[in-house]
Amino acid sequence: MVAKNNYIYPDEELYNYVIDTLNAKGVTMTNIAEQAYRMQKRFYPELTVDDYAKQVPKVLKKRDVLNILAVGLALDEVATKKQLPQPLQEIVEHDAGIFGVDELLALCIAQMFGGLSISNTFYMDIAKQGIAKELDHAPGVNVFIDDLISALASAVIARNGHGKPLDLSGYETKLNYK
Amino acid sequence: MVAKNNYIYPDEELYNYVIDTLNAKGVTMTNIAEQAYRMQKRFYPELTVDDYAKQVPKVLKKRDVLNILAVGLALDEVATKKQLPQPLQEIVEHDAGIFGVDELLALCIAQMFGGLSISNTFYMDIAKQGIAKELDHAPGVNVFIDDLISALASAVIARNGHGKPLDLSGYETKLNYK
Amino acid sequence: MVAKNNYIYPDEELYNYVIDTLNAKGVTMTNIAEQAYRMQKRFYPELTVDDYAKQVPKVLKKRDVLNILAVGLALDEVATKKQLPQPLQEIVEHDAGIFGVDELLALCIAQMFGGLSISNTFYMDIAKQGIAKELDHAPGVNVFIDDLISALASAVIARNGHGKPLDLSGYETKLNYK
Amino acid sequence: MVAKNNYIYPDEELYNYVIDTLNAKGVTMTNIAEQAYRMQKRFYPELTVDDYAKQVPKVLKKRDVLNILAVGLALDEVATKKQLPQPLQEIVEHDAGIFGVDELLALCIAQMFGGLSISNTFYMDIAKQGIAKELDHAPGVNVFIDDLISALASAVIARNGHGKPLDLSGYETKLNYK
Repeated sequence: MVAKNNYIYPDEELYNYVIDTLNAKGVTMTNIAEQAYRMQKRFYPELTVDDYAKQVPKVLKKRDVLNILAVGLALDEVATKKQLPQPLQEIVEHDAGIFGVDELLALCIAQMFGGLSISNTFYMDIAKQGIAKELDHAPGVNVFIDDLISALASAVIARNGHGKPLDLSGYETKLNYK
Repeated sequence: MVAKNNYIYPDEELYNYVIDTLNAKGVTMTNIAEQAYRMQKRFYPELTVDDYAKQVPKVLKKRDVLNILAVGLALDEVATKKQLPQPLQEIVEHDAGIFGVDELLALCIAQMFGGLSISNTFYMDIAKQGIAKELDHAPGVNVFIDDLISALASAVIARNGHGKPLDLSGYETKLNYK
Repeated sequence: MVAKNNYIYPDEELYNYVIDTLNAKGVTMTNIAEQAYRMQKRFYPELTVDDYAKQVPKVLKKRDVLNILAVGLALDEVATKKQLPQPLQEIVEHDAGIFGVDELLALCIAQMFGGLSISNTFYMDIAKQGIAKELDHAPGVNVFIDDLISALASAVIARNGHGKPLDLSGYETKLNYK
Repeated sequence: MVAKNNYIYPDEELYNYVIDTLNAKGVTMTNIAEQAYRMQKRFYPELTVDDYAKQVPKVLKKRDVLNILAVGLALDEVATKKQLPQPLQEIVEHDAGIFGVDELLALCIAQMFGGLSISNTFYMDIAKQGIAKELDHAPGVNVFIDDLISALASAVIARNGHGKPLDLSGYETKLNYK
């Protein structure tokens, strides 16, 4: 991989592609926040769906998150058009449990948000509920999208669920800049 | 992701797709073994390219490795046909350095072979040499293939470069099966 | 990290340390197999605890797995002796949910066995049952051991639960060794 | 792992432990910034060591980063006091190349900062230079610290080296909050 010079990365188009594709599949930001809320209400009963909803755009603005989401959503889209080479087209259409690349892409998102995010992503993958479950019955190929949504909800949890925020203001004076 | 029942996974077709696609790009098993040899000769001067070549098929027979390779090679193939949605098509065509999903897929392979494999994958990614370097100038889109080859070479290193093999025969008696 | 020359890696001692430490905590190989069986019986009702038990020593013989297990078990042991520096000693004693390094070490094991292993590791982490649950009430510090056991059970699942084994005998002829 | 209720996480003490331990080993924030600068000057000749230095405290304020750093630095400290159980004590003292847990902890940090951070961490691990190289000859056990410093420098690169910052202000209106 070699970066070509002077290429302006299309962040805005990438963000729009991801949001538009999620919306077209019936996935709203509120669905993601609800998934986060459902996982965390026994630990943080005082937090509302709205509290989680505020974190969703922050997670979606990380370029590395957008890149992974775009690849996963594009794979579902290309598979829906039957344009993947064989036998990958067939594997993805069958949503074979031992394929596993959908879970690996979700993991790549979760790893950016720490251990709590990873646990929750994979708990949701197995104990499927809410929007991720509904997607199993949506039209088109939906192999990657449900794992990616679990990862997004888990990233939101990791941002909101860490209890007391890390406030270290004033501690930079300790840093040795010599 | 829900496994549909009774689907026979197309292991043989998947293996053939990966090998045929690598060969069509001019990548032979010997190229991968040479990459491994080049990285390791200062540590293991007694090992030959052939020693590494023997490990290549063993790495390629892991289903999880094949799945990741097939997804990466398919993304290059779909991009060559200009069938990725925008702006992903454009990002992949420019091989933008901050895209990073190519490196993440390579990492997913490397992680199956331990820490030594991970280091070597990413050293090769930056200190580009051999077949991975030549692919930068090959026809078509070659964004994923070079990182995947580095991961394969590193997996081969991890299998061959761990010094004395782990021989624990006879130790099962210690296992407490009560 | 620089490998010193001529050091013979103590594989046998490392294996014994891991097995002895697990046994001393009351964890048998059968417990690990039972955990795997409990997770998989709805998918593979024909497999017995014994089928999983046969895979446990195979997982435990990978040097990279032993290395990670030894580090996690040693951290529990050093913490039990109150020899960790502060505030890490206190964090580990409280088993704080946002510590997360225990889950990351478990993930490092799971990643060697593919996507299915990762999902199951973290499902077990949240839906705690069996031996992992009992360890919460065992004497001494048991912060790392429960996650490591979940990772071991998941590795066993990944080895046994992938359905039809990958038989590609005869396919090496396709490899281009020119 | 079960979070005990009402435990106030000692963020400040943890941060101080990490900074004090790095300083005691002769590692300053400037050293980390220099490592980042050295890796990136051919891509971003206009950035100075100071530009990278400004990012160091931001990386160090992530709790998940501090947790991993504290575990790695504590393992070096406990090994220096010869308080690790055998054979782990001996393995760490020999800094055996096939141990690999030091690299895995570094990877856990790098993965929080995306693909570019991962590549750079492992390039530095092999092409050892600067402060990481000097630590090979410092007193005490320094098995984990050099890889952790490479991960910190790579995290700094990932924060500074992504070219044009991701500015999506005004795009939240696209989010479907129904």
